[in-house]
Amino acid sequence: MVNHYSSKLVEEAVSELSKLPGIGKRTAMRLALHLLKQEVAFSERLGNSIISMRNNIQFCKRCHNISDQEVCEICSNPRRDGKLLCIVEDIRDVMAIENTGQFQGLYHVLGGLISPMDGVSPSDLTIDKLTSRIKNEEVEEIILALSATVEGDTTNFYIYKQLNAFSLKVSTIARGVAIGDEIEFADEITLGRSIIGRLPYEANI
Amino acid sequence: MVNHYSSKLVEEAVSELSKLPGIGKRTAMRLALHLLKQEVAFSERLGNSIISMRNNIQFCKRCHNISDQEVCEICSNPRRDGKLLCIVEDIRDVMAIENTGQFQGLYHVLGGLISPMDGVSPSDLTIDKLTSRIKNEEVEEIILALSATVEGDTTNFYIYKQLNAFSLKVSTIARGVAIGDEIEFADEITLGRSIIGRLPYEANI
Repeated sequence: MVNHYSSKLVEEAVSELSKLPGIGKRTAMRLALHLLKQEVAFSERLGNSIISMRNNIQFCKRCHNISDQEVCEICSNPRRDGKLLCIVEDIRDVMAIENTGQFQGLYHVLGGLISPMDGVSPSDLTIDKLTSRIKNEEVEEIILALSATVEGDTTNFYIYKQLNAFSLKVSTIARGVAIGDEIEFADEITLGRSIIGRLPYEANI
Repeated sequence: MVNHYSSKLVEEAVSELSKLPGIGKRTAMRLALHLLKQEVAFSERLGNSIISMRNNIQFCKRCHNISDQEVCEICSNPRRDGKLLCIVEDIRDVMAIENTGQFQGLYHVLGGLISPMDGVSPSDLTIDKLTSRIKNEEVEEIILALSATVEGDTTNFYIYKQLNAFSLKVSTIARGVAIGDEIEFADEITLGRSIIGRLPYEANI
């Protein structure tokens, strides 16, 4: 679709917006027209918040989570349990787990998963920093909370081997039938894993 | 979903992004993380293009299309036919019609459709300015290119009545079965209109 814009300003904004993932030319145009209908302050807040986020964001020196300071709010919270580390792929996973309210330990954000297909090797991730954290901090247990994919399994295995040298408890999050899902429709592998990983009734309510 | 952001900067950007139509918290988060993975310049271009568009945009004094100058590129193009005016709801329609390459006249952008349900009355639109254009410019024909909805029909009728006083040719765009569509699946009203509006074979190829 070749668009005939009567405004270079709109053309540029649409072109920039449509570089975002999942936003095509048509959606970008709709967003631009929406912005034009709002107050000037609306676009200024949006534009400035994007620029300021990108310019000022830092990654926590300790866990590599996003942060406004050198060390993130989670790592610098004295009430969190430094003996328990949860290994996650990226920042979204930190948020998802934080939203559960079930985890009081610290995180370690890998920044990706090992994937030879996509050219991601262990050295592209923060695995070295994880081993040095384990050397220097008093970590007692590691929870591997990576996606249940080939890449996730590969990364789990690699980390597990790296941590062999340390006397650590290494666990992975439970796989099983999701709350609210019907047994009938669960896939075989998940259902199989949920049987292998069965728990005493009292522990699972 | 209450999100636990470890960064105020990200929280603000997500909050602003999710104010856009069709973008929820989850999509906004995905966009923010995408921005964080790109160069600083990427976010700067995006943010600045949005701010600059909203701050500097003008609406053409003549046709109310968006414009970078007082009078838009279409109105100031001497090769366009000023005797023919196409009435459209908004800027997107101008672009859609421009993309066809089939229209060489000028536009008049109403800025909406009459809709008592949504509290849009004729005075909220640029209909007054349309009648004064017709008084002052040498318009010979008006093409009503509004949506085939109740609001579109109401607006068509209102404009038609307003223009009664002038000796003008008033037409509406043809309704019919879309190119590539099968007759079998066309709705009855469209199919009926396409029969009423039938054209000599030679004119329709």
